Amino acid sequence: MKAEIIAVGTELLLGQVVNTNATFLSEELANLGIEVYYHTVVGDNPQRLEQLLVEAQSRSDLIVLCGGLGPTEDDLTKDIVAAHIHHSLVEDEQALARLHEFFTFSKSTMTENNLRQTLMIEGGIAVQNPTGLAVGTLITEDETTYLLLPGPPSELKPMFQQNARPLLEELFPQEEQLISRVLRFYGIGESQLVTELKELIDEQTNPTIAPYAKPNEVTLRLTAKIADKVEGEQLLDHLESQVMTKVGEYFYGYGDENSLVKVTVDALKKHGKTISAAESLTAGLFQSTLGDVSGVSEVFKGGFVTYSAETKEQFLAIDRKLLEKEGTASEACAIAMAEQTRKLADTDFAVSFTGVAGPNELEGQAAGTVWIALAEKGQPTIAVLQHFKRDRKYIRLSAVMKGLDLIRRAVDKKK
Amino acid sequence: MKAEIIAVGTELLLGQVVNTNATFLSEELANLGIEVYYHTVVGDNPQRLEQLLVEAQSRSDLIVLCGGLGPTEDDLTKDIVAAHIHHSLVEDEQALARLHEFFTFSKSTMTENNLRQTLMIEGGIAVQNPTGLAVGTLITEDETTYLLLPGPPSELKPMFQQNARPLLEELFPQEEQLISRVLRFYGIGESQLVTELKELIDEQTNPTIAPYAKPNEVTLRLTAKIADKVEGEQLLDHLESQVMTKVGEYFYGYGDENSLVKVTVDALKKHGKTISAAESLTAGLFQSTLGDVSGVSEVFKGGFVTYSAETKEQFLAIDRKLLEKEGTASEACAIAMAEQTRKLADTDFAVSFTGVAGPNELEGQAAGTVWIALAEKGQPTIAVLQHFKRDRKYIRLSAVMKGLDLIRRAVDKKK
Repeated sequence: MKAEIIAVGTELLLGQVVNTNATFLSEELANLGIEVYYHTVVGDNPQRLEQLLVEAQSRSDLIVLCGGLGPTEDDLTKDIVAAHIHHSLVEDEQALARLHEFFTFSKSTMTENNLRQTLMIEGGIAVQNPTGLAVGTLITEDETTYLLLPGPPSELKPMFQQNARPLLEELFPQEEQLISRVLRFYGIGESQLVTELKELIDEQTNPTIAPYAKPNEVTLRLTAKIADKVEGEQLLDHLESQVMTKVGEYFYGYGDENSLVKVTVDALKKHGKTISAAESLTAGLFQSTLGDVSGVSEVFKGGFVTYSAETKEQFLAIDRKLLEKEGTASEACAIAMAEQTRKLADTDFAVSFTGVAGPNELEGQAAGTVWIALAEKGQPTIAVLQHFKRDRKYIRLSAVMKGLDLIRRAVDKKK
Repeated sequence: MKAEIIAVGTELLLGQVVNTNATFLSEELANLGIEVYYHTVVGDNPQRLEQLLVEAQSRSDLIVLCGGLGPTEDDLTKDIVAAHIHHSLVEDEQALARLHEFFTFSKSTMTENNLRQTLMIEGGIAVQNPTGLAVGTLITEDETTYLLLPGPPSELKPMFQQNARPLLEELFPQEEQLISRVLRFYGIGESQLVTELKELIDEQTNPTIAPYAKPNEVTLRLTAKIADKVEGEQLLDHLESQVMTKVGEYFYGYGDENSLVKVTVDALKKHGKTISAAESLTAGLFQSTLGDVSGVSEVFKGGFVTYSAETKEQFLAIDRKLLEKEGTASEACAIAMAEQTRKLADTDFAVSFTGVAGPNELEGQAAGTVWIALAEKGQPTIAVLQHFKRDRKYIRLSAVMKGLDLIRRAVDKKK
């Protein structure tokens, strides 16, 4: 079972866009037991794409194409693949209905070229696009299967996961399956995690252990390749318990689609606790991160962005003398922000963030110096000092993650 | 002058690493006037790499290879390219001296396999590696030039910029250079933009016009290929004015690194105006987006996140009767939020966001229904109703972008 991935788009060859689709699809196909032998990028050029298809067909069982399904003239992937396998293009009714619905709802004008997005290759299976308008196709011809996906990653990823992956699983059933489990860690770096787990990693054969560093967190993917699912889960259970013995204190949750904010919101919901926030350097990023979670309104009612000393005084009634004496990037200010916010918003918890986002220092303190305080009804307020590194964006994100971890740990202790 | 980029490494085909080297090299080569026609990724497999070299040699003048120069057994790029052009490998003295120096300085033990990194292809030019130990090679054989670079971006980039680029400039002097200009648009979709500019796009030869859609905006890259820089700029000026005649009302700024929030903050600074915000469905995303811009504290002091009806009442003193009668996702609520916030924060402008982030409907209104209001000192408050599509994240982002555009337009009218 050999596969290859062809990305179509001159913007990739000009270095304007990174080919993250190939990376995503490679990982997904590996999980299905499908080996990827080549990635290729070709421009919006009919001859070169056709030539590449001839080559790809001679060496691969599955060719995944991304890009070139859009409404414009240079979106030519469908036309070229259809011509290559001597099929025509037909309108997909479901995609057409969605297109009309989109333009009706958004009250914008539909130009004629938008209809191109509803075309699929005749005789294939339409692959619907949950977050966009261009429909994809899965079609097999002469023992080669072609899967056409859109270029924007925000469309390609949900389309693959929801609609293309099930089709591929049915078309290419694997005797041995890959069973994997993702463990997520916060508060430990990748190199330290790998050092702690060195023996386990050196000995790995089946299941395997793959660490992956993300901004402010590390995930471990444990993967067993096995025919029997129950036996696979048992192997993973055993390996997981070995991992947890060594680094369990940093573990916060399972799964690819999980996140520290989801786990934190779930903990608040489970214990029936509410949260509010006052943000200085993070400027709303913490609250906006809560807002990413659907249904967060059950535990989150609102809060403040106090970016200046004046708004800390005006919105939160923090004593001007405290601000003048201690400065805004101080423990005293962080504690006052959290405690005042908790009272004003009448919540069980309130978190505050104040410090130096950078690039320049502030009040004589280096960029990355951040105080985070957590006030809790009937408990003493805790405050932690952090020194984050890198750029402004990373410092603000790091502060939000640390705040979430403080809340999660405080809430869970209440069991 | 046709070039292609081949990245060698199984980790790329497994989806563990993103091929950012191809993106970097493509942009660098485009700036040298060298056109890249293909990117390919192949694993650490001698047969497939050799087969790919045969193919590449038949279609390209320059083949840039990245990866596989390291010390381990699976680093085979040098061996395969040398065999392909019937040359042998020789030790490079400068690289060997650096290797010994490195191990003496770091007081670590040099294993035998490290010597492989000092090998280059006989008859070529050694390309030194300023931040690593593996030496590269530039060699021309049978009218095809091969450039071998290391895989880690931290080595590849400085090596290319300091040592490979000057060699390529000498080897392939370009009479013509690429001069480009990026125009950014908000409020028009890619398909509509392309329709408006159809004639210009159909006629394009030099300069060219390349549209590119990003979430909530579209950019146009105008590129002239020309010997004389001044003449190139004139061509771009002329094309730009033709573009502006058709879609100028949606234009907001120039440049790859620009953004609607930067332009909005700059406009506020220029006119000495301050801004505050009250956010419901966006939950702090608007203010956090302002916080991304370094130096925004000059115009932004803070604001509110009022995610529930209670906090709208508590923080902003909005009349409960209004909330009960009109609902929170209403024009009246948006206007009250903006006006109250402007007074409480004592700013020139205040923007508010209220509506339905989804996925479920709220108060009988569909996900994506959003009211945005902008209050301005001494002016009537404006309010707009929007119907955004797609998922929760995109709806919230779309609302923030629309808010920024309203502010930018309101501030700029004050000239």
